[in-house]
Amino acid sequence: MLDSKKILEAYNNIRGYVTETPLITSPTLNNMLGHELYFKLENLQKTGSYKVRGCFNSLLSLAAQKKLPKKVTAYSTGNHGLGLAYAAKKFSVQTDLYLPAFTSKIKQIIAQKYGANIIYTKTRGEAEEFSKLEAQKEKDVTYLPPSDLDSVILGAGTVTYEALLQEKGFDSAFVPIGGGGLAAGSYLAKQLHNVQTKIFLSEPKQANDVSISLKTNKLFKFESSPETIADGARTLGISNNIFQYIKKCDGIFEISEREIVYWTAWFTHLTKMVCEPTSALALAAAYRWLKKEKRKRKILIIITGGNLDSVTYNKIWAEDHLLIPPNQFIFDKE
Amino acid sequence: MLDSKKILEAYNNIRGYVTETPLITSPTLNNMLGHELYFKLENLQKTGSYKVRGCFNSLLSLAAQKKLPKKVTAYSTGNHGLGLAYAAKKFSVQTDLYLPAFTSKIKQIIAQKYGANIIYTKTRGEAEEFSKLEAQKEKDVTYLPPSDLDSVILGAGTVTYEALLQEKGFDSAFVPIGGGGLAAGSYLAKQLHNVQTKIFLSEPKQANDVSISLKTNKLFKFESSPETIADGARTLGISNNIFQYIKKCDGIFEISEREIVYWTAWFTHLTKMVCEPTSALALAAAYRWLKKEKRKRKILIIITGGNLDSVTYNKIWAEDHLLIPPNQFIFDKE
Repeated sequence: MLDSKKILEAYNNIRGYVTETPLITSPTLNNMLGHELYFKLENLQKTGSYKVRGCFNSLLSLAAQKKLPKKVTAYSTGNHGLGLAYAAKKFSVQTDLYLPAFTSKIKQIIAQKYGANIIYTKTRGEAEEFSKLEAQKEKDVTYLPPSDLDSVILGAGTVTYEALLQEKGFDSAFVPIGGGGLAAGSYLAKQLHNVQTKIFLSEPKQANDVSISLKTNKLFKFESSPETIADGARTLGISNNIFQYIKKCDGIFEISEREIVYWTAWFTHLTKMVCEPTSALALAAAYRWLKKEKRKRKILIIITGGNLDSVTYNKIWAEDHLLIPPNQFIFDKE
Repeated sequence: MLDSKKILEAYNNIRGYVTETPLITSPTLNNMLGHELYFKLENLQKTGSYKVRGCFNSLLSLAAQKKLPKKVTAYSTGNHGLGLAYAAKKFSVQTDLYLPAFTSKIKQIIAQKYGANIIYTKTRGEAEEFSKLEAQKEKDVTYLPPSDLDSVILGAGTVTYEALLQEKGFDSAFVPIGGGGLAAGSYLAKQLHNVQTKIFLSEPKQANDVSISLKTNKLFKFESSPETIADGARTLGISNNIFQYIKKCDGIFEISEREIVYWTAWFTHLTKMVCEPTSALALAAAYRWLKKEKRKRKILIIITGGNLDSVTYNKIWAEDHLLIPPNQFIFDKE
């Protein structure tokens, strides 16, 4: 496991390249729930998600070792691809992004706008394979994974570290988990800064590989991408390296699709901002936890990103979630 | 017409009660369009809309004259009602809000949360009639109209005034028009602060009473609320008093429903924030105007509010607007 002091190093590295995003609270929600909830707004981060932090940290690490390549490759239908394209461009490094042909058109448009060269594949598996292959075969090309790389973990951890600098005294922090880079980084951040803050993870019930792995103490992996509206959590599984950090965290919540959509809608209603369904995982978990707390608690919720396509918006608003206020919402049994 | 200096007075009055909302720009949109567009974010204002400014200014004016009543009344299915309930509560003044029974449930919930007492009526006409009647019949009750009152106009004008303080050198400002309080106040604000800035108005093509009034130089009023997704512009018509200011503005745009929905969606996509369809009117008008400008322009767009219900979200995202980027969007013929 990494030394938590390295989070500070990463934070100082990337500061000039990323936005110090706001940390906000909603008096309305706090009144309704009787607790203090703070949201770290990485939906307002450059490229619309925290992922760009890990990308900058990786490229800056390579640059410090004088190993900055001519080209980077990645497979990603989501925020890692966007973040990498954006960060690479700042260093005049090219990006080859391998995407399954079914990737939503708007994400393709944005990736191209950030200067990525897109190569289409049939499946997600192929995209992963080809992006690694290019880096192995060609000279001066580096493959950058979305989660399991020290520089990515540290970059992601700067989100939570920054939030812990912005506000003191959090009882716990809630983090969605897909590949687990943010979860691992958040664990390091609180070790460095605020050891008594608990780190709780959250994943979709329909994509609960981490919960299974924790229960069985053995890495579980899906064979194909699980179906969930929280697209950032559709990963097949986490790595052995990430698993070490996950075991040190304080618990995990399995969230139903109904809860994800409900909290995505309410986050927007309360803050006038959009968050990805993946981010709503953290809010849903926080709600479950707070319901059982007798003392007034102060908590941190990481809003990981705000990149949604029309299909997702459609699914969110198909039902009128706003009819049920948060203090009357009954979540699904675990 | 009011002396524009009164805007400054109103601004100083309400400063401690309302939020100084951010003025932001979207580098992505600016690059696409080749102009500089600034958004004044009244969706982040207390109660989610600029309307609360006029309400505070009205109550503060009454307080200064030692005429603060025990109760205020209003008819409003929207932001004026919310703003009034919120502001009145700060002065320990009760609010009777007359609402047609078909008002969306979420708006009722919010109004009640702000402490309003809601009285249901059959129609919008009845709501207006009864709210005025109560103030006439009962002692110590004041009726506060949503637009046509000097203190409301001045309060609304502080939005544009504040934006003109935050950033210099706007060629023009774009303002949606419903009842016309914001339009009139914006005219005064630029007279006071930055005379060369042009004020352009924007209304739905399906609710174009102001355009008709301007063309015929005679006040036109709808007999029943026109159908448009821009609910802030569903007013029947403007008053003679407001009409004086409107004639001094620099033009008006009639926006199709398709354009309203397109720009509502794109505003969210670009900024990760939601705006009401009524606010998108201003952005749609700005786009039309900028398309014809040869020189690079710097403009101000007032985002009036961010209170949407599920039905509206549903309508917005029913189509995939994000497939067509703003620089390729072809607007409807005027």
